[in-house]
Amino acid sequence: MANTNGTSNGLEWTVTISDGTPDEQVVESSWICSAWIGLLGLILALKLKVWRFWEKIRKLAVDDPRRIFHCFKVGLALTLVSLCYYMRPLYDGVGGTAMWAIFTVIVVFEYTVGATISKGLNRGMATLVAGALGFIVHWLASQSGEKAKPVVLGVFVFLIVSTATFLRFIPTVKARFDYGVLIFILTFSLVSISGHREDELFELAHQRLSTIAIGGFMCIFISILICPVWAGEELHRLITCNIEKLADSLDGCVAEYFHESGNIADNKEPGQKSQGYKSVLNSKATEESLANFARWEPPHGRFWFRHPWKQYLKIAAATRCCTYRLEALNSSINSEIKAPEFMKKHLSDACIKLSSQSSTVLKELATTTKRMRRSSNIEFLVGEMNGAVEDLRNALESLPYQLQLLLPPPSIETMEEEENPCISTINFPLTEVMPLVVITSLLIEIAGRIQGVVDAVNELAGLSSFKPAVDAELR
Amino acid sequence: MANTNGTSNGLEWTVTISDGTPDEQVVESSWICSAWIGLLGLILALKLKVWRFWEKIRKLAVDDPRRIFHCFKVGLALTLVSLCYYMRPLYDGVGGTAMWAIFTVIVVFEYTVGATISKGLNRGMATLVAGALGFIVHWLASQSGEKAKPVVLGVFVFLIVSTATFLRFIPTVKARFDYGVLIFILTFSLVSISGHREDELFELAHQRLSTIAIGGFMCIFISILICPVWAGEELHRLITCNIEKLADSLDGCVAEYFHESGNIADNKEPGQKSQGYKSVLNSKATEESLANFARWEPPHGRFWFRHPWKQYLKIAAATRCCTYRLEALNSSINSEIKAPEFMKKHLSDACIKLSSQSSTVLKELATTTKRMRRSSNIEFLVGEMNGAVEDLRNALESLPYQLQLLLPPPSIETMEEEENPCISTINFPLTEVMPLVVITSLLIEIAGRIQGVVDAVNELAGLSSFKPAVDAELR
Repeated sequence: MANTNGTSNGLEWTVTISDGTPDEQVVESSWICSAWIGLLGLILALKLKVWRFWEKIRKLAVDDPRRIFHCFKVGLALTLVSLCYYMRPLYDGVGGTAMWAIFTVIVVFEYTVGATISKGLNRGMATLVAGALGFIVHWLASQSGEKAKPVVLGVFVFLIVSTATFLRFIPTVKARFDYGVLIFILTFSLVSISGHREDELFELAHQRLSTIAIGGFMCIFISILICPVWAGEELHRLITCNIEKLADSLDGCVAEYFHESGNIADNKEPGQKSQGYKSVLNSKATEESLANFARWEPPHGRFWFRHPWKQYLKIAAATRCCTYRLEALNSSINSEIKAPEFMKKHLSDACIKLSSQSSTVLKELATTTKRMRRSSNIEFLVGEMNGAVEDLRNALESLPYQLQLLLPPPSIETMEEEENPCISTINFPLTEVMPLVVITSLLIEIAGRIQGVVDAVNELAGLSSFKPAVDAELR
Repeated sequence: MANTNGTSNGLEWTVTISDGTPDEQVVESSWICSAWIGLLGLILALKLKVWRFWEKIRKLAVDDPRRIFHCFKVGLALTLVSLCYYMRPLYDGVGGTAMWAIFTVIVVFEYTVGATISKGLNRGMATLVAGALGFIVHWLASQSGEKAKPVVLGVFVFLIVSTATFLRFIPTVKARFDYGVLIFILTFSLVSISGHREDELFELAHQRLSTIAIGGFMCIFISILICPVWAGEELHRLITCNIEKLADSLDGCVAEYFHESGNIADNKEPGQKSQGYKSVLNSKATEESLANFARWEPPHGRFWFRHPWKQYLKIAAATRCCTYRLEALNSSINSEIKAPEFMKKHLSDACIKLSSQSSTVLKELATTTKRMRRSSNIEFLVGEMNGAVEDLRNALESLPYQLQLLLPPPSIETMEEEENPCISTINFPLTEVMPLVVITSLLIEIAGRIQGVVDAVNELAGLSSFKPAVDAELR
């Protein structure tokens, strides 16, 4: 019995046994068996979990091998700074505060160059300002006599810390100087409070600043010199990638709806491709932080000082505007109400043409942004897209006429019988047509919104003086 | 001359003068004048800027006065910890590492209780684990002989720091333990590297842990005891507020389109209200971080341990799903193509009824979530909403018939002349009708998506065992 039903669990066994005559041996063996199975299950589950975790980590590393480099860069910076600590001359010079250099490396070293520079400069500047202010407060407190000193100091610390904490709520400060304000509070408290005990304030401030400078510059140099990850370039790539995703999804969605496999023949998983736009819906926070960090970066590659990073956010906003409509389009495509097949056929060509033209415009915009060269034929493509919009409008307008040709004409008898002779043919079910009308309307709407992306990209081309397009052969 | 054209700037003056005969006195007075005007302008601009900044700060404080309390709480915590530093017994006990308590307060004290606890526990646990690991590594390095020690230590630090840095890329770790991993790297480096110089590792670790504990618990106690801001409650409020915003915007948009002022009589700025949904589009990041912090919080108010915070994210996702459609609806409403007035009139009642029913359901869901009591009439309201959907569908289906009644019937002559007798009436302009069809379709779609919000809220009611509704009089 125990062998025949080995897959069931302990609980079931007990129930079975309590119904029949209890046998001690069977109970014991069933317990061992179920414990064994439970243990095996546990090990297997654990193995699966570890394997899944490992797969996740592997995927993270494979998706972007620069992450591995980043880890090694942090390790290298830390080892180099530790060397300063090991070597006696530096150790004697910087004293016990050498650990500040280690702290700085760990806290300041970020994935992108911009973030590292932003944090490094924030830390340095905040330390300088807070040190100076702390010194002034300390001096003011000293003037008020030995007894009143702690009280005056306490009041100053309370007021300045509270004010600085409030500053962190201001959105612009939060976005760009949050870390700086934190370090300001930290250093100010340290200088003014520890100053109560020690009189080597100048020495302390000097040491802290120099060690922070060592750590900060080490981070910035390593992050720039070894496999740099530029926030600006990441933003640039993210924006073009999002435009491409939108183009692919638009194409994919419409082709899927009209069962048109020709357009997606080169793609093995059309469903996945047509859903690619979903990540664009929620990329705003990433874009904003990248744009924020990009402003701190020195000129690199094709990007010069004062590169209009804010304009990228405008392009992103325009792209997202299209994406919201695509999301609505996607849900209409998956609507339960199916449009009549002949109507679908009638609009199919015009819809696929418009989606493909829109997608071509988007891809051209992505290429323009990617290559940072003005497009020679964007105007032509936009014209084509607008032409496709007109064609679709015409197809829609000729639809009732087409319907008439396709449906059997009303017989004279029915016409004579009914009050309104044309009702039978006019009264085509508008609800059935609805998803199709919505899809076409949203396609037209998306084409209109693409004009916004075109304008934003053109503005970027003007602001950062894109070169004219190269010849077609060179592209 | 200088008096009559006092508003122009210095550049213009020079141009004017170079055209006529230059007069030294005029040039001089014009310079002084323009400098004076420039200075005045600068002062005014500065004044305006300061005033705007001040207004911004005032608004921040007025919008949420708890921000002011938070600043005072941070100041208080810091003052209390400083007291520990001033008092000799504690100072002797904790030694120079007392500054760690100050650091902990500054770094750990966050706006919400959950964030503070999360950071405090992360810091404490990470210090404990890193201290232990650092000690083990230090002991292992010591076993390898005096010469090999720095090398072994260096290799260990490099490997462990690199691995820990990589962990920060894993999304789940990034979301919940990012600060912990950072502190782990910090403490581990500090213990293993400084251990090379000093042999009071145990003492150091013990001091660091105890000071961090003092600082951390101080933060947690103050943040819980004085005007606590619970992340859970914030999330709860944000979700209900978003549902309400959606309801208002839906009502507002549709009423605006159909020029129906009755529905928005109680609202002085209908435009602003109907655009309120925009903030819902981008609230995902805030919701996720709040849900993340809420999990760390002890039971408070109506929320117990293991309150299903994740379910709130599901409600938020369902709400956002509706919001994307509302965004599409909003752009259709602002479409340039105007639907024929009689069609609008025909659908007006059904559309307004549906939007008002949908909005009622949403408001009921917001109330259910807000009061944490099951709704007694949500099923009835959903039924009403579905009824309104059916009514709108019927109105759409009867539309061609209505059109027929409104338009002059085709004369027998035209019917005989043309090949297809009904074209003249069937061929109503589909493109003109489109925005209206899209609006009705999106309204129906939104009603469908609201079902998703209803399901998510019902699931929440089940998971956190909402009490049954109270009597209508008590609400």
